Amino acid sequence: MFNAIVSADTLQATLDSVSVLVDECKIHLEEDGLEIRAVDPANVGMVDLRLDAAAFESYETDGGLIGVNLSRLEDIAGMADAGQPVHLDLDEETRKLHISIDGLEYTLALIDPDSIRQEPDLPDLDLSANIVIEGKDIDRSVTAADMVSDHIALGVDATEELFYVDAEGDTDDVHLELTRDDLIDLTPGDAHSLFSLDYLKNMNKAIPKDAEVEMELGEEFPVKMHFSFAEGQGRVTYMLAPRIQSE
Amino acid sequence: MFNAIVSADTLQATLDSVSVLVDECKIHLEEDGLEIRAVDPANVGMVDLRLDAAAFESYETDGGLIGVNLSRLEDIAGMADAGQPVHLDLDEETRKLHISIDGLEYTLALIDPDSIRQEPDLPDLDLSANIVIEGKDIDRSVTAADMVSDHIALGVDATEELFYVDAEGDTDDVHLELTRDDLIDLTPGDAHSLFSLDYLKNMNKAIPKDAEVEMELGEEFPVKMHFSFAEGQGRVTYMLAPRIQSE
Amino acid sequence: MFNAIVSADTLQATLDSVSVLVDECKIHLEEDGLEIRAVDPANVGMVDLRLDAAAFESYETDGGLIGVNLSRLEDIAGMADAGQPVHLDLDEETRKLHISIDGLEYTLALIDPDSIRQEPDLPDLDLSANIVIEGKDIDRSVTAADMVSDHIALGVDATEELFYVDAEGDTDDVHLELTRDDLIDLTPGDAHSLFSLDYLKNMNKAIPKDAEVEMELGEEFPVKMHFSFAEGQGRVTYMLAPRIQSE
Repeated sequence: MFNAIVSADTLQATLDSVSVLVDECKIHLEEDGLEIRAVDPANVGMVDLRLDAAAFESYETDGGLIGVNLSRLEDIAGMADAGQPVHLDLDEETRKLHISIDGLEYTLALIDPDSIRQEPDLPDLDLSANIVIEGKDIDRSVTAADMVSDHIALGVDATEELFYVDAEGDTDDVHLELTRDDLIDLTPGDAHSLFSLDYLKNMNKAIPKDAEVEMELGEEFPVKMHFSFAEGQGRVTYMLAPRIQSE
Repeated sequence: MFNAIVSADTLQATLDSVSVLVDECKIHLEEDGLEIRAVDPANVGMVDLRLDAAAFESYETDGGLIGVNLSRLEDIAGMADAGQPVHLDLDEETRKLHISIDGLEYTLALIDPDSIRQEPDLPDLDLSANIVIEGKDIDRSVTAADMVSDHIALGVDATEELFYVDAEGDTDDVHLELTRDDLIDLTPGDAHSLFSLDYLKNMNKAIPKDAEVEMELGEEFPVKMHFSFAEGQGRVTYMLAPRIQSE
Repeated sequence: MFNAIVSADTLQATLDSVSVLVDECKIHLEEDGLEIRAVDPANVGMVDLRLDAAAFESYETDGGLIGVNLSRLEDIAGMADAGQPVHLDLDEETRKLHISIDGLEYTLALIDPDSIRQEPDLPDLDLSANIVIEGKDIDRSVTAADMVSDHIALGVDATEELFYVDAEGDTDDVHLELTRDDLIDLTPGDAHSLFSLDYLKNMNKAIPKDAEVEMELGEEFPVKMHFSFAEGQGRVTYMLAPRIQSE
């Protein structure tokens, strides 16, 4: 059983955070909220999302697991105005999700969860540096790096106490330094890793420009990014594997 | 002789209502206003439009019939700002229409009316149900149906006193019910017909979202939609033939 | 040595005025400002631009000549908000331009000026007519002419004291007349020349709609257009060669 009402923008933010990595996903219906974990086909980017029951106008479930086509569900949510309530009602017999928006009822065929790529376990990593950065600064970094390269290096200089972004193209380079003053927080530790820009660009699309993003970084290690949405009642963690740097 | 001044948005609304079905049309210049009737090449959708002389800032004619390329005339009208007056002056000798917008003069070659597809007669139909619906609800119905199917069923349930929209896709379905309270008016009578969504999508583009649209419906019969524009001085009727439903 | 700070919109306007004609250009770094002259590959359109040192927040140079890729530099300037300062610093050793925008540093490889098409000398022409016209009227003329033709005739009728625009298509024509009252100024003299619309459309893109454009015209002669930007501290001259009119 799953019967819930959620505002269209909260639903949209939830779906967007996952659809930047995968087309389909499993949604765990837990008593205290939704949980989604997914990894892209190349095993490079992972997402772990949680949306508390408190983020819903009403939320009832006795547990369960459903598989959904994300772009289809995003299209449906897009039919609603931003604050409009979206009613979700699972028909367990037919394995269909009934989605109602102000008199309009959409019947969505669910996907067999067993047919969806296995969910990843995001590993605990002992990462040396930790910063808190505004979403708009991630956006600037990614947009600038994209002008010169397919890769982007993220790092922390523990001595100088600054976070930096590097992108090297064939002829042009981009470099950004953010000091402790430019950041919301900085826990220094030497860190430097190279990432595929495509993945970071996709994750950036789902990060609100005004979000406070906690970023954990290491030496040739994955980066983890944590941010919240839906007034703190939704939380997303992205993990992105590094590229091997040629010497 | 035809010499008239009309605001650009009234002209644009007139042209848009017809161009969703055909590329060229005949315009009847009557003493009390303009009349346009047209049918698409497949004989599925028809339009009957009337724009009263009172909708013009000035209007003079001794009658006549001209043929125009609609997209060309729409482009010209698009050069004007919304409320700006557009001056139309027919040169009967050269069969050209002189269109002036604030000092800019465009000379449009007319099309021989005999070369344009024959005008339809919209039949009188004794349709069982009649509703009055807001343009924005037609828009919602068409947009939602388009997510799952190429067809859309429109119907009225006389017992329940409601208007409904149905679209069935391979896996997903869309259903919308509007009760008497959701509608502006309802004259019940059982009705149910299936239509090509492409045609209804095109007609929907020309229906103002805030228009009150009178819809006449029957059992496997055409649908007729009536609405007005230009503060009631322009009136459009669309008629759309049903698709045969396979059992 | 070249070290300067300029607002992003002034930089953008400078680059846009030149990039409508060429992809790469030479920039002369003079003590009292920048100078750019360029001609398109077909030798039909020329631009002569000057941006005074006073248009910069700070400006220091001991002279020099650099070659730049315009679209690349426009992309970088586009990273800044409209009024945001852009810091330009030339590294003469590496022939790279360091561009800083609020902590973001972009290193742009310059182009060898010798590899860029030679700069034109805009000839002094004794043109018979001179008008001053609003940028938005050039925009209207070009947009309307583009609906019917690839060419546009610009002329002045000395007797009637009016400026006119003519475009003749296969079936339709466009004609615009602006009297002394419609113009900012008019120094009459008979003039009539035919131009390629593509070039004028491109130049029009860079002319602010609210600019006062001085236009010099002759009989089958080039047209010159002068306008200023950056509160008068930047000045652009376009010269466009006429097309030979077939009799």
